[in-house]
Amino acid sequence: MSHNRRDFLKHSSVLAGSAVAAALATAPSAAAAPTAAPVRRRGAAPRMTLRFRPYTIQLRHVFTIATSSRTTTPVVLTEIEYDGVTGYGEASMPPYLGESHESALAFLKQVDLSRYESPFGLEAILHDIDALAPGNPAAKASVDIALHDLVGRLLRQPWYNIWGYDPQKTPYTSFTIGIDTQDVVRQKTQEAAEYKVLKVKLGRDTDKMMVETIRTVTDKPITADVNQGWTDRAAALDMLHWLHERGVVMVEQPLPKERVDDLAWLTARSPVPIIGDEGVQRLADIPKAKGVYSGINIKLMKCTGMREAHQMIVLARALGMKVMLGCMTETSCGISAASHLSPMVDWADLDGALLISNDVYDGTQVVDGKVTLRNRPGIGVRKLKG
Amino acid sequence: MSHNRRDFLKHSSVLAGSAVAAALATAPSAAAAPTAAPVRRRGAAPRMTLRFRPYTIQLRHVFTIATSSRTTTPVVLTEIEYDGVTGYGEASMPPYLGESHESALAFLKQVDLSRYESPFGLEAILHDIDALAPGNPAAKASVDIALHDLVGRLLRQPWYNIWGYDPQKTPYTSFTIGIDTQDVVRQKTQEAAEYKVLKVKLGRDTDKMMVETIRTVTDKPITADVNQGWTDRAAALDMLHWLHERGVVMVEQPLPKERVDDLAWLTARSPVPIIGDEGVQRLADIPKAKGVYSGINIKLMKCTGMREAHQMIVLARALGMKVMLGCMTETSCGISAASHLSPMVDWADLDGALLISNDVYDGTQVVDGKVTLRNRPGIGVRKLKG
Repeated sequence: MSHNRRDFLKHSSVLAGSAVAAALATAPSAAAAPTAAPVRRRGAAPRMTLRFRPYTIQLRHVFTIATSSRTTTPVVLTEIEYDGVTGYGEASMPPYLGESHESALAFLKQVDLSRYESPFGLEAILHDIDALAPGNPAAKASVDIALHDLVGRLLRQPWYNIWGYDPQKTPYTSFTIGIDTQDVVRQKTQEAAEYKVLKVKLGRDTDKMMVETIRTVTDKPITADVNQGWTDRAAALDMLHWLHERGVVMVEQPLPKERVDDLAWLTARSPVPIIGDEGVQRLADIPKAKGVYSGINIKLMKCTGMREAHQMIVLARALGMKVMLGCMTETSCGISAASHLSPMVDWADLDGALLISNDVYDGTQVVDGKVTLRNRPGIGVRKLKG
Repeated sequence: MSHNRRDFLKHSSVLAGSAVAAALATAPSAAAAPTAAPVRRRGAAPRMTLRFRPYTIQLRHVFTIATSSRTTTPVVLTEIEYDGVTGYGEASMPPYLGESHESALAFLKQVDLSRYESPFGLEAILHDIDALAPGNPAAKASVDIALHDLVGRLLRQPWYNIWGYDPQKTPYTSFTIGIDTQDVVRQKTQEAAEYKVLKVKLGRDTDKMMVETIRTVTDKPITADVNQGWTDRAAALDMLHWLHERGVVMVEQPLPKERVDDLAWLTARSPVPIIGDEGVQRLADIPKAKGVYSGINIKLMKCTGMREAHQMIVLARALGMKVMLGCMTETSCGISAASHLSPMVDWADLDGALLISNDVYDGTQVVDGKVTLRNRPGIGVRKLKG
């Protein structure tokens, strides 16, 4: 593994996109420099340069949820450079969500940041990027995160300070235990001794075994993620009561997201909060989710990044909904970006970087189970030396 | 008029409040310094100091709305100093809203900023201040604004950059024409030649005269503010059609705020958007306002300041509601604070500082009718020399 600057550039695509002529007209040195180094011509206004490269995350364990199993996750690592300062971003794309190395690289090639005078106009820049194509939320998030990191570095403050959040108020993160055999579940539960909350993946015929096995090891609070895996609403309600009696404190996406009426029925009767994950992607989904779910699971990779995630927290709170902050398997880049919002949420599931064996960044950590922010500008990451 | 530092201190109350003992324990030099000057003992952590003084705004014209007339507005000017940097704030308190010099000074004496380690924890600080007492929105805003100004100065960026808004996208401000005689209305309309939008105060038996008089001078778009002055909903709907036919593009608060069902009836039938002003004070009022009004009028002095105003814009937009940004008669301090949000609104009524003859600050200006932001840190104000 080599992640130094030379290696990054070797694998990078320097942004060209469809607007090379425009970029050359306004910022010739920055756009034309073959290495994207800050060869800023004296007097020329600085412009942003976007770089990106595909990367494959290796998981420490085979990861199984209701619908799939895998050992790797494709990601794209981005960098945005402006006036000698570089911000870092990431797109993480579990294959079942529809994005891929190919789709993300194709999307990012369309992003022309050289046409903006400064990185501070996040509202307009991110609006333009969102409008480039529908979908592609992780690819969009990789630009959003790098822009936030860049702006935070230019402001010389971590985003928790820019947003005004107390870094001491971060939550404990849950540690996820995937669907597996009884022996593996028991072993993983034992290995998760540091964590104060466990998240169990449910949605197959092994649900009771999973929870009972964990309960042979620990009485810690458990959150459950069904990933749309249940089908009958009456059976689901029985299962919610069964789980509640065994110390499960919250359940994500018990039924398929399309079954809005059944979900509302379940939420109205459930002894534990029901959180929408697959059913709530972006800001515009939240008003419709009121009454259907007790709360929402916000993930940067499905909502296009930090700016919209921040707005989603404001909106959900104002509507009296609970907020969970989740992640994909990600490097410490994506996890660190999300973690600046974590002082404002009810539950956090930010264990994504703990599940991988080839992280690329050092950033937000989990210390004794608690999300622990670094007092560093931007999203607070540093590139690891390869 | 003398507004230099010495004069400010002479009239100021140095914050003591109820927590002097705690303040002394943590930051003796800052809390005990009788002049609140930055006598920072070497090695002592900097702490915030709040100063405030009453001030009386003189209006250029007698100002008449549906319910009252007046020639002055009581305000309180605040300053928060931290580590040698000072942020400025203001509470403006038109008497019919219930706050006064006395109530604001009494409230501000309870605010103890010396117990916070830094000004960056806006979420917690402003939550604590809001919880000190119910009501007092302008007094609360005076702290919120000074804190934002301070944080922006520490970040060395204007708030439009920190929020990511484009300073070029500011709206035209309306210029307000109060209820008056035909001659005065005609004269004021002529004097408002610079402005692209006029706002007319309605709600008395002179409504048609007011609009017809303006229309003898100009065909500019007009917004109308009824200040709850109409009573019959059917007559109100007739009047809305009459106004619409004469180029009135939006109407504020046509009926008393308590008449929710009648307002919803009117909004559903109105040919122009109906904006809630008296009926929508704070963030928590917005979900209830959906369906009752087409949009909301946000004023810093009723919503406790910039942080909640920013959240209100996010919430209203997400619910598909229109947003207007209004003001009281205020110095350029309050107006400048609000103006950083103006790139995100549909209508702005930020003429408050233009209506007064003894402004204390230089900040956001109106140039050819357009809200024009200064590229200065914080809220962008400088104290005028007396």
